[in-house]
Amino acid sequence: MNSFNSPLLDSAVAELSKLPGIGHKTALRLALHLLRQEKETAFALGKSIIEMRDNIQYCRRCHNISESELCPLCNDSRRDPAIVCVVENVKDVLTIEATHEHHGLYHVLGGVISPLDGISPSDLEIDSLIKRVKEEGIEEIILALSPTMEGDTTNFYIYRKLANLPVKITMLARGLAIGNELEYADELTLGRSILNRTLFTDSFNE
Amino acid sequence: MNSFNSPLLDSAVAELSKLPGIGHKTALRLALHLLRQEKETAFALGKSIIEMRDNIQYCRRCHNISESELCPLCNDSRRDPAIVCVVENVKDVLTIEATHEHHGLYHVLGGVISPLDGISPSDLEIDSLIKRVKEEGIEEIILALSPTMEGDTTNFYIYRKLANLPVKITMLARGLAIGNELEYADELTLGRSILNRTLFTDSFNE
Repeated sequence: MNSFNSPLLDSAVAELSKLPGIGHKTALRLALHLLRQEKETAFALGKSIIEMRDNIQYCRRCHNISESELCPLCNDSRRDPAIVCVVENVKDVLTIEATHEHHGLYHVLGGVISPLDGISPSDLEIDSLIKRVKEEGIEEIILALSPTMEGDTTNFYIYRKLANLPVKITMLARGLAIGNELEYADELTLGRSILNRTLFTDSFNE
Repeated sequence: MNSFNSPLLDSAVAELSKLPGIGHKTALRLALHLLRQEKETAFALGKSIIEMRDNIQYCRRCHNISESELCPLCNDSRRDPAIVCVVENVKDVLTIEATHEHHGLYHVLGGVISPLDGISPSDLEIDSLIKRVKEEGIEEIILALSPTMEGDTTNFYIYRKLANLPVKITMLARGLAIGNELEYADELTLGRSILNRTLFTDSFNE
């Protein structure tokens, strides 16, 4: 006997081990944990997963997570619709929001161009971004993708697509991470931060 | 905004992060993963958790996991009911079964005596074990608890409780782990394996 001869437990373990980073052993541990809990606890978990997947959709405009057709950010009249920050995924929306430095809207691509992973521009929300730029009177697009090979490729692809449209295209500054010792900065970043050096007084205007 | 303003997502994240070893960040990652999957995948996970917790019970006799009143092991007429292996939890039943060396039944204590964790003998299935020994004609009890302070305490407690009953009480052999270098064995284990040395020919009879 390699299992408890319980199809119900086996099924729960099989479903749990489909989650990323959760192997068979962890799945079994989680299932046995749930068996030891009150029924209500396990039911609440099961129901919350089903209800979340059943009712959450993606914002028709920016493709962020939303419980209605437009997400709370797109619906917020205090946000500036002329500045749109382009991010890879919905988690990055949270990350940027946590800085409190962006007061415009978002556009979630759903990934970055990565030929090795079989992700081409048509798999991403790039056409819908161009459509928004044409129709919504967007003045600035902030490219906020990760400074990786794939992120840069995607940045460049979007830049080329938008080049003929009357929109300012900016990207996140690259340079020394605040709080890091100079000695531990990599050469590429340090070199870039010398090339893109800013006037000393500018840092007081932020 | 520190969340997606989605009560449904927040609720799923909160429930997921109640699982052992899963913090808020991991829970969010799992929830976002589930949102990217087909509805059927998330529904299958949710339903399997609910159905498992709703229908799995514990065996009336040995307290192993079971979908009926008696578990498949207790119901298996090929197993020897005269030899009962006492284990800490249901997972240990699997571990012992994987060795294919025990052909009797089990008795799951549901823990070990641990005053520091507030677990006393009355919290464990010890009375029901004594009752089984008295009523079921058990000839041998194999104590298969972990060789820890708590395991040994529990072994000794059970031994004392069963001392006046006509039952043979054995425990798992302690000694060198097979495949380990002598040089890395701890002194306690090595000393024990010298005291409990076995006749060389015995090892061929296994």
